[in-house]
Amino acid sequence: MAKLILYIAQSLDGFIADEDGGVDWLNNYLKPDEDYGYNDFYKSLGAVIVGSKTYEQSIGFNQWYTDMESYVFTTRRLPVPAGWNPVFCQGDPAPLVQQLKTKPKDTWLVGGAQLVTSFINAKLVDEIILSVIPEIIGRGIPLFQNIQRRDKLRLLATRQYKYGVSQLHYAF
Amino acid sequence: MAKLILYIAQSLDGFIADEDGGVDWLNNYLKPDEDYGYNDFYKSLGAVIVGSKTYEQSIGFNQWYTDMESYVFTTRRLPVPAGWNPVFCQGDPAPLVQQLKTKPKDTWLVGGAQLVTSFINAKLVDEIILSVIPEIIGRGIPLFQNIQRRDKLRLLATRQYKYGVSQLHYAF
Repeated sequence: MAKLILYIAQSLDGFIADEDGGVDWLNNYLKPDEDYGYNDFYKSLGAVIVGSKTYEQSIGFNQWYTDMESYVFTTRRLPVPAGWNPVFCQGDPAPLVQQLKTKPKDTWLVGGAQLVTSFINAKLVDEIILSVIPEIIGRGIPLFQNIQRRDKLRLLATRQYKYGVSQLHYAF
Repeated sequence: MAKLILYIAQSLDGFIADEDGGVDWLNNYLKPDEDYGYNDFYKSLGAVIVGSKTYEQSIGFNQWYTDMESYVFTTRRLPVPAGWNPVFCQGDPAPLVQQLKTKPKDTWLVGGAQLVTSFINAKLVDEIILSVIPEIIGRGIPLFQNIQRRDKLRLLATRQYKYGVSQLHYAF
């Protein structure tokens, strides 16, 4: 069965973005000689799921996952740049996730925090691959917020990358 | 020069204690066959510094660091169990920390969160050894709160222990 995997970076103090949603502080870690496992992970994917703010950021970055299925959870009407293929969804994500888990390849839960929270609360996430950036940024958008359950996870691996990045890999 | 080291455990979602300060969820990780580097760390110490709530918890647990110097930052008058040797301090911790850093052995900043925040904001901490417990607890007391600066740290090591515990070791 395919998995739904949260693959995301956070600061040491637990933020995935600045207070205004900015991720400029991640730019120092975009390096030509280290991808933190991203390319291998990406090859394992058949679909991505993102929230509406993350989708809008993708428009700003002009980067989309055009080589796989893509789903955007939103209650708003959002623009679609030429060549992009997003499927806009709303409501209970469980039926979509169940369907995606029958496919041969995994699905990436990209973010952001609100979507992550609702997916964890609904027990839809199979694995977390968390890259810990060696910076304390003080304030911003926490990865985990308003989680309504307690979970004991299974640590699959702890990895140490260049540039001070640690990666914690868990299964629920 | 000796160092001031924050050695602490947090849940995967960044909490060092329940909302009521409880750390019962850590008990599952107190194991006879794994100390997560604690004993070696402890041997390197000449002093500990704790906040008042952490001191009160220590009274509850009936455990103190009687074999080294101990400092408690508090503005309250707190009891001293028989055989304990705490030095009660208040105000700017910088002079004490400077003095401790001239000693041959390191100092452990035990916690809690308020003390950690004030020490990080005052640039007094040299290293962080953070044990990440493989549990999401949803709510509680965050390790990092109200940090007023941004810091890029240097990752010294990423360690993987039994029972799903990861340890991230940083220097400022």
